[in-house]
Amino acid sequence: MRFWAREKSSMSSSRKVVELFYDVVSPYSWLAFEVLCRYRNVWNIELKFKPAYLAGVMHGSGNRPPGMVPNKFHYMTTDLKRLSNYFGVHLSPPSNAFEAMFEKGTLNAMRFVTAVAEKEKEGDMLVERVSRELWKRIWSTDQDITQPASLTEAGLKAGLSANEVEEILTLSKSQPIKDKLKSVTEEALEHKCFGFPCTVCYVNGKTEVFFGSDRFELMAYCIGEKWVGPQPANPTAKM
Amino acid sequence: MRFWAREKSSMSSSRKVVELFYDVVSPYSWLAFEVLCRYRNVWNIELKFKPAYLAGVMHGSGNRPPGMVPNKFHYMTTDLKRLSNYFGVHLSPPSNAFEAMFEKGTLNAMRFVTAVAEKEKEGDMLVERVSRELWKRIWSTDQDITQPASLTEAGLKAGLSANEVEEILTLSKSQPIKDKLKSVTEEALEHKCFGFPCTVCYVNGKTEVFFGSDRFELMAYCIGEKWVGPQPANPTAKM
Repeated sequence: MRFWAREKSSMSSSRKVVELFYDVVSPYSWLAFEVLCRYRNVWNIELKFKPAYLAGVMHGSGNRPPGMVPNKFHYMTTDLKRLSNYFGVHLSPPSNAFEAMFEKGTLNAMRFVTAVAEKEKEGDMLVERVSRELWKRIWSTDQDITQPASLTEAGLKAGLSANEVEEILTLSKSQPIKDKLKSVTEEALEHKCFGFPCTVCYVNGKTEVFFGSDRFELMAYCIGEKWVGPQPANPTAKM
Repeated sequence: MRFWAREKSSMSSSRKVVELFYDVVSPYSWLAFEVLCRYRNVWNIELKFKPAYLAGVMHGSGNRPPGMVPNKFHYMTTDLKRLSNYFGVHLSPPSNAFEAMFEKGTLNAMRFVTAVAEKEKEGDMLVERVSRELWKRIWSTDQDITQPASLTEAGLKAGLSANEVEEILTLSKSQPIKDKLKSVTEEALEHKCFGFPCTVCYVNGKTEVFFGSDRFELMAYCIGEKWVGPQPANPTAKM
């Protein structure tokens, strides 16, 4: 028994910690999120979700949204369509992307996710499911994610009970949750982040920061794991 | 004999044309350039070099250099170091990157490359070599690429004779070459380019445009070829 316990603990300590800073306003973050969820059982990593507020990171770093340059906006639209197919994530931009991203925004949604994380003491299954439901709404089915009714619907679909959703909605408006979202956003800025997704890997006493959903091959190389494309169950490298 | 001739011609017509728009001011363009040079004999593609002027593309698209955001500049430095190892391209930023990129610039250098392309009627071996020598100077050995003496040195190292270099230097200052560089830059803008490298693939009557040196896996997927990492002679996918 003791042998097995030691084995387990030594395995666990050798696992590389990988933190994903994200906001559901960001479609590239959704791609990174799904890829890391798929690889958490393929690579020897401990994946930690870091729901944060992208507008705060953009403001804090002095960065501008890429979509502000017309040619870049046009490219992103094409790029996301191709990546959606290749990554196997059903991305479909909202009919009014500007309104959804910059006018309506995700402050309520990310406070809601932060409250889910706070309530979920063990594991992160609910954070994962709630985040995915929110991404589906904004980046797949063109639905609102700002209103309590919208957040309720996402919460229920993610497997929360009506009571739990109610409790989380109330909690999401509390000062401690607002502060928590702020502090995770500041943590991202401490890693010199300038946009999302931002993936922070802790490996051999070093911190490796990766921006975007296009550095997984490099990430694998840096953390000593193997990249076989965005769908490891169906490796593209063997095509 | 006729059978073989037909075979050859049908093979040649099935090759996908891949154009690389680049400027030696851009280190990510160097990575893309080396990768495409390595893959031109691995993938069924006809690679065409499109030396252009990045400052013109940035101006024409209203984009800003990413290095203007301090966190982004910090990230790029780390990212380039990691990519340099992974891509097997000896990248080392100039001691004064800002001066080299934005004050000294690459107008003379890119006119020089354009003149080499104009002189080289058959093939593009010299354009390839001269571009590489210029990238080495600015992005590896921290040497000037604005002065005639610098361009001469690069030209000689690339295999041009002293007479040829002299001729190309004179040609590079002529109006037709200035106009040619402008027109290739405008061609990039017509593809809705907003930065370099910009790779344009013509496949099955469709045009697929890729920005950056981080879309090769997606590019391979789109053109029906196989990506095995940035060094196909030593495939990382099989690590």
